[in-house]
Amino acid sequence: MYHHVKKLMYTVRVGEADPKFGRMLLEQFGGANGELAAAMQYSIQGLNCEDPARKDLLMDIGTEELSHLEVIGSLARLHLKPTKASREAADADPLVAICGGGGVGLFNSQGNPWTADYLKITGELDVDLRSNIAAEARAKIVYERLIDFTNDSGTKDALQFLMTREITHMKAFMLALQSMGKDPLKIGEIPPTPGLVDQFFNDSTGEGDAGKEFRGPWNEGNGFQFVEAPAFKELRDRSGSR
Amino acid sequence: MYHHVKKLMYTVRVGEADPKFGRMLLEQFGGANGELAAAMQYSIQGLNCEDPARKDLLMDIGTEELSHLEVIGSLARLHLKPTKASREAADADPLVAICGGGGVGLFNSQGNPWTADYLKITGELDVDLRSNIAAEARAKIVYERLIDFTNDSGTKDALQFLMTREITHMKAFMLALQSMGKDPLKIGEIPPTPGLVDQFFNDSTGEGDAGKEFRGPWNEGNGFQFVEAPAFKELRDRSGSR
Amino acid sequence: MYHHVKKLMYTVRVGEADPKFGRMLLEQFGGANGELAAAMQYSIQGLNCEDPARKDLLMDIGTEELSHLEVIGSLARLHLKPTKASREAADADPLVAICGGGGVGLFNSQGNPWTADYLKITGELDVDLRSNIAAEARAKIVYERLIDFTNDSGTKDALQFLMTREITHMKAFMLALQSMGKDPLKIGEIPPTPGLVDQFFNDSTGEGDAGKEFRGPWNEGNGFQFVEAPAFKELRDRSGSR
Amino acid sequence: MYHHVKKLMYTVRVGEADPKFGRMLLEQFGGANGELAAAMQYSIQGLNCEDPARKDLLMDIGTEELSHLEVIGSLARLHLKPTKASREAADADPLVAICGGGGVGLFNSQGNPWTADYLKITGELDVDLRSNIAAEARAKIVYERLIDFTNDSGTKDALQFLMTREITHMKAFMLALQSMGKDPLKIGEIPPTPGLVDQFFNDSTGEGDAGKEFRGPWNEGNGFQFVEAPAFKELRDRSGSR
Amino acid sequence: MYHHVKKLMYTVRVGEADPKFGRMLLEQFGGANGELAAAMQYSIQGLNCEDPARKDLLMDIGTEELSHLEVIGSLARLHLKPTKASREAADADPLVAICGGGGVGLFNSQGNPWTADYLKITGELDVDLRSNIAAEARAKIVYERLIDFTNDSGTKDALQFLMTREITHMKAFMLALQSMGKDPLKIGEIPPTPGLVDQFFNDSTGEGDAGKEFRGPWNEGNGFQFVEAPAFKELRDRSGSR
Amino acid sequence: MYHHVKKLMYTVRVGEADPKFGRMLLEQFGGANGELAAAMQYSIQGLNCEDPARKDLLMDIGTEELSHLEVIGSLARLHLKPTKASREAADADPLVAICGGGGVGLFNSQGNPWTADYLKITGELDVDLRSNIAAEARAKIVYERLIDFTNDSGTKDALQFLMTREITHMKAFMLALQSMGKDPLKIGEIPPTPGLVDQFFNDSTGEGDAGKEFRGPWNEGNGFQFVEAPAFKELRDRSGSR
Repeated sequence: MYHHVKKLMYTVRVGEADPKFGRMLLEQFGGANGELAAAMQYSIQGLNCEDPARKDLLMDIGTEELSHLEVIGSLARLHLKPTKASREAADADPLVAICGGGGVGLFNSQGNPWTADYLKITGELDVDLRSNIAAEARAKIVYERLIDFTNDSGTKDALQFLMTREITHMKAFMLALQSMGKDPLKIGEIPPTPGLVDQFFNDSTGEGDAGKEFRGPWNEGNGFQFVEAPAFKELRDRSGSR
Repeated sequence: MYHHVKKLMYTVRVGEADPKFGRMLLEQFGGANGELAAAMQYSIQGLNCEDPARKDLLMDIGTEELSHLEVIGSLARLHLKPTKASREAADADPLVAICGGGGVGLFNSQGNPWTADYLKITGELDVDLRSNIAAEARAKIVYERLIDFTNDSGTKDALQFLMTREITHMKAFMLALQSMGKDPLKIGEIPPTPGLVDQFFNDSTGEGDAGKEFRGPWNEGNGFQFVEAPAFKELRDRSGSR
Repeated sequence: MYHHVKKLMYTVRVGEADPKFGRMLLEQFGGANGELAAAMQYSIQGLNCEDPARKDLLMDIGTEELSHLEVIGSLARLHLKPTKASREAADADPLVAICGGGGVGLFNSQGNPWTADYLKITGELDVDLRSNIAAEARAKIVYERLIDFTNDSGTKDALQFLMTREITHMKAFMLALQSMGKDPLKIGEIPPTPGLVDQFFNDSTGEGDAGKEFRGPWNEGNGFQFVEAPAFKELRDRSGSR
Repeated sequence: MYHHVKKLMYTVRVGEADPKFGRMLLEQFGGANGELAAAMQYSIQGLNCEDPARKDLLMDIGTEELSHLEVIGSLARLHLKPTKASREAADADPLVAICGGGGVGLFNSQGNPWTADYLKITGELDVDLRSNIAAEARAKIVYERLIDFTNDSGTKDALQFLMTREITHMKAFMLALQSMGKDPLKIGEIPPTPGLVDQFFNDSTGEGDAGKEFRGPWNEGNGFQFVEAPAFKELRDRSGSR
Repeated sequence: MYHHVKKLMYTVRVGEADPKFGRMLLEQFGGANGELAAAMQYSIQGLNCEDPARKDLLMDIGTEELSHLEVIGSLARLHLKPTKASREAADADPLVAICGGGGVGLFNSQGNPWTADYLKITGELDVDLRSNIAAEARAKIVYERLIDFTNDSGTKDALQFLMTREITHMKAFMLALQSMGKDPLKIGEIPPTPGLVDQFFNDSTGEGDAGKEFRGPWNEGNGFQFVEAPAFKELRDRSGSR
Repeated sequence: MYHHVKKLMYTVRVGEADPKFGRMLLEQFGGANGELAAAMQYSIQGLNCEDPARKDLLMDIGTEELSHLEVIGSLARLHLKPTKASREAADADPLVAICGGGGVGLFNSQGNPWTADYLKITGELDVDLRSNIAAEARAKIVYERLIDFTNDSGTKDALQFLMTREITHMKAFMLALQSMGKDPLKIGEIPPTPGLVDQFFNDSTGEGDAGKEFRGPWNEGNGFQFVEAPAFKELRDRSGSR
């Protein structure tokens, strides 16, 4: 059961409204890595979760994200409000202006509607925690980019608050995953095929405008067997036959 | 530049076609955690990547996923082929039957078209690697579930091959992330706000049909300050005023 | 700011799980007229609303819908859980089974992802209230249809609870609209063109498999001027010229 | 059966093309509250409708909306045509310019494709009429906003025509609903649970940046029982226990 | 301007309703190659078209497709109607049953909403005609598959009518294209690069489960220069260096 | 099986980055007529194809389109890169800037995610070849429009290369279709209804702002029987009765 209190988790103040920046802020309201995506991903994982302790964690953070949704929405609203009355402002986000009357909707910076396709929910707890760690990392970098694109101090403060919380959540999800005590490469129950699992396929080769080849810990040592491109042998044979 | 050779990375054999299972297989062809999603996510991250070594890694694995797409598509095709001629089979996947003539398309198990909204591409390398680790974990568990739902040995073999490769990729992405030598909680450049970053907000409380409260390493110790629900004080005050 | 308590607004009990019915229930979890749509529509209207009294109303009901989302999700989860282990159950909803591991996601009964395109938010208060009245009416009839398709008494009880609340909300929105004291046909500020506004265009004529013509209060009396099909004169002239 | 005559329902004239305004006009061509949405919503409701008299009404108005689609499309076309040859104009709507060659497509002001998710069709006549009343109110306010953002007199005239017709339709749908003689709070056949239906849940409380609490006819009098937030008791108890 | 007459272009009769077949029929109502897609594609091409003669053609056929939409919708409605009252029928299409009350909506056979992404409209007349020829061919084969999956004679008759008309339209579009007198390989104004345009790149090579290589008029003779895979040389060199 | 070599099929050079033009280029990366759409359409048709010779053709060209995807993506990347650091550049494509960190994603010029709804795959070879011919014609005209909107010579060169290849492919698909030796109006197996197939329905009539009527080879001669609008007779009778 949910309850709402009429205080924002972080009070938003805006000096001068910047509708084009308001449009950018919508990424974190109705966008792919935004607060609704976070709230829904964690809360629904929580609803499905059968580990009672980590279910509590998922609900704690899922609920906090709803409060963030309200903060970022209120902030975007302040920046987008001029789109109602000013034609110039309206050109920055015609969807908000014409359909929303200057109010926010669940769209991203270019007007795409929020979709549940943004969510990653598998019902496998350790997998879901990995998806959440990645989601928090994405949200952090998006907030950082937003901070870099505004000079308004009130706006920066609110974004700094929200950005900070992503790191808190990232840490909590990491610790929750560690505390499960699972081998990080053991997912589910069926083991991978021995031997095959150690082969690294070198499927992109050569040197040119699109880069060159490198060896690193991700394809040498660490038990890896380096396999020249599987498609290669056939090509080589063909080449020889000409 | 890409080249195609007319050999599957893993030869597919199917005993008896099972159209309803073929429909399930489409999750890994045109679904959210499927092979096209993997191929596109890694290859486009690679295209954008400015770290030449890990760019090579992204292209290696991105290309391998294209070969997987071909394998899973060929497998699904064998299971779905009867939908062309048999009305009963067609009822299992009318979209494949009526629109596709029994051939596969980029749809998931319930006919939703593949969408780039499935992808997580931020242009921040360590963040992208985290998204990839999570993506591989999801793909692994999906393959495991598919294996659990078929008795056909040829099908199981192909799925086991594909499932195994996800673990290989997961390991490679993990090692690539580690080799960057970054503090796992340092994302981007702007530091989180000290103090605030250590607060764990207990936003879901009580006990009931939807669980109960727990403490764990994700909200105690590890530098955490446990904060009773931020909304709580206001509610408590209100409660006191009655 | 939001707070979550670990008690459902209505405790869900299910006798025997019915996965195909669980699939139907998803309409009210992640479907077009479901609880997330209601929660988001009212809460975001509330966020944008500048009439403080009705803003409170929108937040009250928007928040209640979040609690409903949790109830219907928990109910659907109970019916869909067998899809994790049983192949026959999985065939009822392969997306839930394969991707969700038997857990619910924000999809409708046929696996379409929830989208903000379901929402109607204009930032014009009386218009939004009309959209809400219609939304509640739709949700009510959907719950009724669900009740008609199950014999499970615990399921019926939960659905009856949720259905009842839609009527409560419908009444509240109607009274909120009435209390604004606006002429129901006055929307916004610009008046319609006199004369033209009274013309009823008879654009579908004749009699056949697709119906026949009727007069009623919606096209006669009430100030209406009945205009035979605007396209008609041209056709008649053409007919005459042959 | 449909017939088309080569006369617009309202002749469109444009002084100077304004591509950015043309983009805004697309909201009423291929957008959520636009003419195709209206045409399809009413016509398909009509196709399904078993009340022959109101079926006629739905077809009359559904058909008129097709004529409006042609008018608004022709108007948008005139404003967007320069995007074919002028790079500056093309920047206003690159999708129209590059893909459409300066011609209109079924997109909204920010290039999202029209989707049937915009439609509200339930097959329950009184419910559908409520959805239609709300749809007309939305379309009216959108036209008003468009009128406010242009100074071109020919454009204003065409929009005034289209806006006026929305009020005509709104009135017709209201009268059609009234003439059914149903209790406005009786939807479908299953009655709501007595008592519960009269409870108003105060789920958003307190005072702060996000508003304060109000009583009004929507939550007091009118048979309402005001229930302090259902989640509250648990929280209060918890609070007391500290 | 449009006018509707209450006679179907082809009267639909159904012996015994077959809800699963009704679901298949939705492909031609709200699906990718269906009648709405045809109606919208041609009518909007017509709206944008500046060749007055072929504009007339596009409007003629675009309007006929609206009449087909009505026929196929009426037919699907008859097959899907039992979903309103019968749980077993409802399981065949829960979206139609629960949301639509047994009435049709703009969805395809697996419940995906119609989207303007199905349309191909470029504003280049000869290109659009090619898209239309292809669209008619697709619609024809879809109708044929539907006919193959039903034994109901009334249904077969209506589908035969609709299928026949696709051939009529295909022929008309072909003749309209021919009558433009353009070189079929001349699209737009900018000529392709001589030499390069004649090279056929053999980018898929070898022999295996995924086929083998063939020469045919599409890559030999006809001015073609056969180029062994562009990526090949690099691979061959690499191979040589081992 | 696929292999990637680190050389672009065409080396991209950009003088001065033009972010707004970069946004336009995304049409051919993640847009409806772009290179991913081509690659997927042909490759999946190839995967399903049972004619071994034309299967080879489909794979040859499908693979080449993957190489084109890499070229256009690399080109768009160069134009969009400034969106990472410059606020002004970021305003040109906020989705690329904020979510992508200046890197490309599978979006079109207005930020819509790539969707498999763009694809036309029927599993009927001659029909698929027609869809491909039309697809190549669309891609050609889109490239031409892009060339017309840039002055950067390196950009023009790359686009000219890609544009040229579309004509090559168009020719190959045309020859592959011709070589099947099918009557162009014979699609599938079920013949159209004689007589009915020759009737041209004149469903759009009169003269006005929306054009006038024309006769041409598409509705006279060529075996056509010209039928005045089917809906007409009813209207005429009605007209006569006044």
